[in-house]
Amino acid sequence: MSRTVYVNGEFLPEEAAKVSVFDRGFLFADAVYEVTSVLDGKLLDFEAHTQRLDRSLRELDMSPPCSKDQLLAIHRRLIEANQLSDGVIYLQVSRGVADRDFVFPVDATPTLVVFTQSKPGLANSPQSKAGIKVVSIPDLRWGRRDIKTVQLLYPSMGKMMAKAAGADDAWMVEQGVVTEGTANNAYIVTDGGKIVTRQLGTEILHGITRAAVLRLAAEVRMEIEQRPFSIDEAQAAAEAFITSASTFVMPVIEIDGVTLGNGRPGPVSRRLREIYLEESRRTAI
Amino acid sequence: MSRTVYVNGEFLPEEAAKVSVFDRGFLFADAVYEVTSVLDGKLLDFEAHTQRLDRSLRELDMSPPCSKDQLLAIHRRLIEANQLSDGVIYLQVSRGVADRDFVFPVDATPTLVVFTQSKPGLANSPQSKAGIKVVSIPDLRWGRRDIKTVQLLYPSMGKMMAKAAGADDAWMVEQGVVTEGTANNAYIVTDGGKIVTRQLGTEILHGITRAAVLRLAAEVRMEIEQRPFSIDEAQAAAEAFITSASTFVMPVIEIDGVTLGNGRPGPVSRRLREIYLEESRRTAI
Repeated sequence: MSRTVYVNGEFLPEEAAKVSVFDRGFLFADAVYEVTSVLDGKLLDFEAHTQRLDRSLRELDMSPPCSKDQLLAIHRRLIEANQLSDGVIYLQVSRGVADRDFVFPVDATPTLVVFTQSKPGLANSPQSKAGIKVVSIPDLRWGRRDIKTVQLLYPSMGKMMAKAAGADDAWMVEQGVVTEGTANNAYIVTDGGKIVTRQLGTEILHGITRAAVLRLAAEVRMEIEQRPFSIDEAQAAAEAFITSASTFVMPVIEIDGVTLGNGRPGPVSRRLREIYLEESRRTAI
Repeated sequence: MSRTVYVNGEFLPEEAAKVSVFDRGFLFADAVYEVTSVLDGKLLDFEAHTQRLDRSLRELDMSPPCSKDQLLAIHRRLIEANQLSDGVIYLQVSRGVADRDFVFPVDATPTLVVFTQSKPGLANSPQSKAGIKVVSIPDLRWGRRDIKTVQLLYPSMGKMMAKAAGADDAWMVEQGVVTEGTANNAYIVTDGGKIVTRQLGTEILHGITRAAVLRLAAEVRMEIEQRPFSIDEAQAAAEAFITSASTFVMPVIEIDGVTLGNGRPGPVSRRLREIYLEESRRTAI
């Protein structure tokens, strides 16, 4: 069955979902995106994703393609058209179509593309029960990782390096400390049960799931410290995990070949995953 | 008049030149490109551009979309279809179309897009006679600038920063020294007439025009030193210039508001431009 995909005002079969070769998203990676998870046909953290989208657009002097209400309506119509129960909705806004020039076009209309990806059992993946293995790689990305652009070639290469090393994902390291995973924020849990994750800045993406998990962790009186950590510290930690919109809270059980604890997801990661999923389902729209 | 554009085996009116929204060039900036100049309907340095394209593809484990002979035939057919006398031909290869996943698809067919841009009087622009002004900005690009990917958002932002500052282009600075311009290599000329430009590495693009200009400069016994230089050194230099496929050798007359020499293109820049254009026209195909 062909998916229905949204492109600039039209709902099209995926084979017909196309953009101009002159789209700046294609020629300059001049585009930003969001990925919103869907559980039981409902959107998780949708408001926060639209807020971050707004910020990305503002940082790049790009115009919003439509109102938030329209965005929500598009998301809902795609969920219905594609009978999406569990999965993600991907949204991309590019600066639009113009003859190729490094100078931004003055009057381009933003391109908006939205599509679904079905991921049955998203919240109950075997990986979330077994935990994942990560390897460290140098962080070679550009300097504004707080803007969610489609300049994703290096994270994609990082995923391939992880695969080649027999791991599931890569943690990127800069100046001796971890920035984040290829498409997720990185955390460790100290022996004392303290959650440690890098503070926000231009060096990492301001994860929507990160914000939610830290808020929920604080609510249940878990201790949180926002600071960088090294691979050495992570390998000696009690637990480690990642968060992202589509993996929620995912335990990490091995870093660069070193097993963490007993090699099984730890109690803090498991509890946070539970709390986050519960709250997300409760507030899904 | 609508241009004819090449997309995956077809020559199409530009309005019909489209790629799938699932093209990895659009979703991940997972694509590389080349720009070849055309003077009097003939291609400049075409062989060198195809060689660099091959290298970019190899570095990213991407397959060539077709043979070099086919590439040449496409370029020539576009020159003819669009009656291109002076201008550039832009070529982009992406990894192809696949459902969105950071993991490279195993069996994707590369996407090949080629289009022309007419630039009448390309070799005699007023800018080449007056020289250009540049401002310095921090280099925030990713770490593999030797691979000619479409991750061009920052250079594009740099061009806008230059415009906002009343300049024509930006020179990017990293660890106190210049890497290169937004889409060109950077040079200074010392009081003694020595040409100084940064040595090759992962920090800069390996310019085709750079290689040609250095070769021709050596042939006429000009002295060349390949090493980094700072903005301070550049501001105190006798001359400065940039090179790229579409600007050839372009004199720089002002850096961060400081006028170089008498504010007019210097003799070394002017001579190199002449020699390069003469040789390029002679060897054009």
